[in-house]
Amino acid sequence: MSERIWTAALVVIGDEILSGRTQDRNVAQIAAWLNVQGIRLAEVRIVGDVEGAIVEAVNALRARNDYLFTTGGIGPTHDDITVDAIAKALGVGVEVHPAARAMLERYYAKRGGLTEARLRMARVPAGAELIENRLSGAPGIRIGSIFVMAGVPHITAGMLDALTGTLEGGRPVLSATIGCWVAESEVADLLGAVERAHAGDDGAVQIGSYPFFRDGRVGANFVVRSPDAAKLGACMADLAARLEGEGRAVTDGGI
Amino acid sequence: MSERIWTAALVVIGDEILSGRTQDRNVAQIAAWLNVQGIRLAEVRIVGDVEGAIVEAVNALRARNDYLFTTGGIGPTHDDITVDAIAKALGVGVEVHPAARAMLERYYAKRGGLTEARLRMARVPAGAELIENRLSGAPGIRIGSIFVMAGVPHITAGMLDALTGTLEGGRPVLSATIGCWVAESEVADLLGAVERAHAGDDGAVQIGSYPFFRDGRVGANFVVRSPDAAKLGACMADLAARLEGEGRAVTDGGI
Repeated sequence: MSERIWTAALVVIGDEILSGRTQDRNVAQIAAWLNVQGIRLAEVRIVGDVEGAIVEAVNALRARNDYLFTTGGIGPTHDDITVDAIAKALGVGVEVHPAARAMLERYYAKRGGLTEARLRMARVPAGAELIENRLSGAPGIRIGSIFVMAGVPHITAGMLDALTGTLEGGRPVLSATIGCWVAESEVADLLGAVERAHAGDDGAVQIGSYPFFRDGRVGANFVVRSPDAAKLGACMADLAARLEGEGRAVTDGGI
Repeated sequence: MSERIWTAALVVIGDEILSGRTQDRNVAQIAAWLNVQGIRLAEVRIVGDVEGAIVEAVNALRARNDYLFTTGGIGPTHDDITVDAIAKALGVGVEVHPAARAMLERYYAKRGGLTEARLRMARVPAGAELIENRLSGAPGIRIGSIFVMAGVPHITAGMLDALTGTLEGGRPVLSATIGCWVAESEVADLLGAVERAHAGDDGAVQIGSYPFFRDGRVGANFVVRSPDAAKLGACMADLAARLEGEGRAVTDGGI
């Protein structure tokens, strides 16, 4: 029986990522968090602060994934258009969420009060719930299967904490790594053979090969991934044995 | 007269990015390089090592951008399927490129010879040209407007060097930054007003606001972007003057 696989997609929103000014950190952070929830990050799109681009990405990805996350564009300034774009994608209006307004009033009580610009951060697509943000007052937003998160990575981290354990998923994908001082091209056939022997019809075991060049030598880390601990262990043991059978030393946990 | 804007898209290929194992560096690197060529990175998709996903992304993005870049999946192992997927997207066959084969023969002459697995790295979509790679023997690939690059960032950097100055573009987008120890929500209206005053009908000037929290204080960097140096300078001067007019100190170059 094939296992239900839960997937998520992510839309990273922001001109600063596409201009190269800012190094994105949210893809890796959200990917790792999703995996613990038993959800696989299936695809990511990075789009600019352009309503049409956000609408297109949101609608394409929410249609074919269990969950959709967005990061960026939920602040108080003119370039923060994520809420309006998502409302447009869903065909709903935008409203001020009373609890978000109350949160912002508390947060800004000693910081100059709730201005019109700050009140923008209480706007949500009609029907949305809030995701707690203990760090900076402005909450994240959940509407159905869509999760609207901050762009600043440590604020996103806090929002993910608030969501931990609340999303239905499957078994997390487990992984194990071994490293080897070898050019991956020398063991490519071996890797392919081991994967074919263990993958199964449902691709339940996968091997990734990640070469590197360090201290003047080439090497590679081989990562075996599976949601099934027994299959993972069997594949890893076979891989290590075949590499050692060719006289290559392997390092558990990678190099 | 509105100016021709040249755009590129990027497809990042690799399970290791979507699993969170590897932090992508190529988006920022390629974005910055493209800007110097006068080409804007308009959109990015990150997909796994799955042929159908690569084909879909390549065909969607090449249709609406002047150039398409891919990173990842061009090594010698079983999970390196980029060449086959691009050939499929273009409806062409895959062939061994004689010059790539010769390069690999030279590179591996003292490294154990050109095995079947290594020869995989000489495979290209039919009709492709090579992009030089001085670092590791295996070349990048150009076919029409598509540029197929390595996943390892420093190898990609070498391939970008080989392409520098060879792609037609427009004027690079210039940028200037000022920083201010202010909550962006306090100056959101000011920022919006300055952008509206300078953007023009063609959106030739844009202001991005990038808040941060550092040393216990909130601040923001404001980045003005334009391909037109005069418009950029005028907008930046206006922005600085208005912020200072509200009694806020600004730091050229950002904080």
